[in-house]
Amino acid sequence: MSRPLRAADFIAARRRIAPKIHRTPLLSFRTLGRRLAADAVLKCENLQKTGSFKVRGALNSIASLGPAERARGVVTISAGNHAQAVAWAAGRAGARAVVVMPERAARTKVEAARGYGAEVVLHGDAAGAFAEAHRRAEAYELVFLHPFDASEVIAGHGSTGLEIAEDVPGPGVIVVPVGGGGQIAGIAGALARAGRLAGRSRMRIVGVEPAGAPSMRRSLDEGRAARLDRVDTIADGLAPPMAGELTYRYVADHVEDVALVSDDEILAAMRLLATRAKLVAEPSGAAAVAALMCGRVSARAGETVVALVTGGNVDEEVMVRALREGARWP
Amino acid sequence: MSRPLRAADFIAARRRIAPKIHRTPLLSFRTLGRRLAADAVLKCENLQKTGSFKVRGALNSIASLGPAERARGVVTISAGNHAQAVAWAAGRAGARAVVVMPERAARTKVEAARGYGAEVVLHGDAAGAFAEAHRRAEAYELVFLHPFDASEVIAGHGSTGLEIAEDVPGPGVIVVPVGGGGQIAGIAGALARAGRLAGRSRMRIVGVEPAGAPSMRRSLDEGRAARLDRVDTIADGLAPPMAGELTYRYVADHVEDVALVSDDEILAAMRLLATRAKLVAEPSGAAAVAALMCGRVSARAGETVVALVTGGNVDEEVMVRALREGARWP
Repeated sequence: MSRPLRAADFIAARRRIAPKIHRTPLLSFRTLGRRLAADAVLKCENLQKTGSFKVRGALNSIASLGPAERARGVVTISAGNHAQAVAWAAGRAGARAVVVMPERAARTKVEAARGYGAEVVLHGDAAGAFAEAHRRAEAYELVFLHPFDASEVIAGHGSTGLEIAEDVPGPGVIVVPVGGGGQIAGIAGALARAGRLAGRSRMRIVGVEPAGAPSMRRSLDEGRAARLDRVDTIADGLAPPMAGELTYRYVADHVEDVALVSDDEILAAMRLLATRAKLVAEPSGAAAVAALMCGRVSARAGETVVALVTGGNVDEEVMVRALREGARWP
Repeated sequence: MSRPLRAADFIAARRRIAPKIHRTPLLSFRTLGRRLAADAVLKCENLQKTGSFKVRGALNSIASLGPAERARGVVTISAGNHAQAVAWAAGRAGARAVVVMPERAARTKVEAARGYGAEVVLHGDAAGAFAEAHRRAEAYELVFLHPFDASEVIAGHGSTGLEIAEDVPGPGVIVVPVGGGGQIAGIAGALARAGRLAGRSRMRIVGVEPAGAPSMRRSLDEGRAARLDRVDTIADGLAPPMAGELTYRYVADHVEDVALVSDDEILAAMRLLATRAKLVAEPSGAAAVAALMCGRVSARAGETVVALVTGGNVDEEVMVRALREGARWP
């Protein structure tokens, strides 16, 4: 699918995947709302199948394959959540899935991808794993599934935006963690095509990246999809060393801003989510809450602020670190 | 209210408190369901206001006070969740709340009760704190609110049963942690009066207690509300040293069985909930899941099993212990 996505594409993708996933709850989060003088709600994709939002894109990608492609099988690259999502979605479709993960991928994510039936290959760092996945696609005639920069992925993630627009009345702001940009592109694209980013019921969309992996922030500053020489962040799910070409366009066209958060702010947000919202979020999954609680993203008084909690797949020791070392707040 | 509760009482209580609380989500929990060959769902009262189910009973109790009683203020006894719930509910009603807590109460619960505006008194062990609360009621002319053995409390907790009956089609089993028995009495009473514990759509209700605080199990064995000489459990919310007189009657009449779990089983369930369901549960809140995962309560193949996750107010170090020491499962 190389033409721009239309409203009907987002609606079709949602219809395709909705029966297989959870419509995740929106939970009000008063502790954060008081800080913002707004209504803060969490869109809990950490409670999604496989523990992250990534199944939305992966399911739609695999559903879009032809029979011959499905018979060949797929290969992808992922720090973890997309790996699990593809493993799970391919398993449901009876397709072979090879997943290349960086050598330092979170242990729980490697185990989970294997548990869902994928062949997991650990290889190099993020950039090296990308290259290895491309190499294997060619060598073994597997279909390469891009983890974020593909229309099928973006269309799948649009479903999150459509759910939020139905569940949250009136205008407001949606705060979305950004790695390669697949999720924010999908949410922004679906809402733009649905006419929700203009007019009286206008919603705003703001992205959040780790200060140590600011690929989309840099892309906006440079006016083109940027590539980083190195990344350094605890948020393994937000660490791809580049923004997507496609995803950058959606962000440039439809996203209000992209803010940055530190690892310490992320750890404090993980702690806040565990102790006050009773939710386990992985570092990537806590980035939007971190940005709001630390004032990196601001809200208008009285509006509804939706923070995406994108995943909950976290190694125990990282969770322990957040509980022990995360700054108390307020 | 000393007459037995009727269906209309449960419905009225629900109507009274529903606008002030969350209708907590029922989340499917496949990991547990596979173990049971059943559909396992979690009723997430850890996501309830104040972090536990206790607000249901506390709100209904305070709403049932006359103006003169409200003006005098209330005193109660609690290991923590009821303390927070009464503090919060009294604050909303503009009533004074004194809460007596055992000296070893969880630090987070003491802080939270103070944060909601209660006057917190730390005093002795559970039995000693009960006596102190009664003494203060008399000395300061405060209305004593029993934490579980009162019709208003039981009627409030019935709302949980009514929500489950609406959300879960057909028969099934509801597994409920038991401390003094207020919640299980409410759920069982509301469903019995609604006709849901008989006939073709019959649901079953099973209680779970810590092996170190088996007051309701002992009550059933002895045929009367029993008092324990000592309790020893990590589940501070399930540690009152006696069953209620009223709650015992509801359990004896309407509950299928009360099973026991060990502290190690509870820690393993806390770990499972955090790593797989992405939910923070306190020890009490994980007891029902512990009983199901360890085979202390069994399910019928294919039925729906609802496990109450009753609270998420846990000290960080107890959560760390569960993550590090909780047995991996399966």
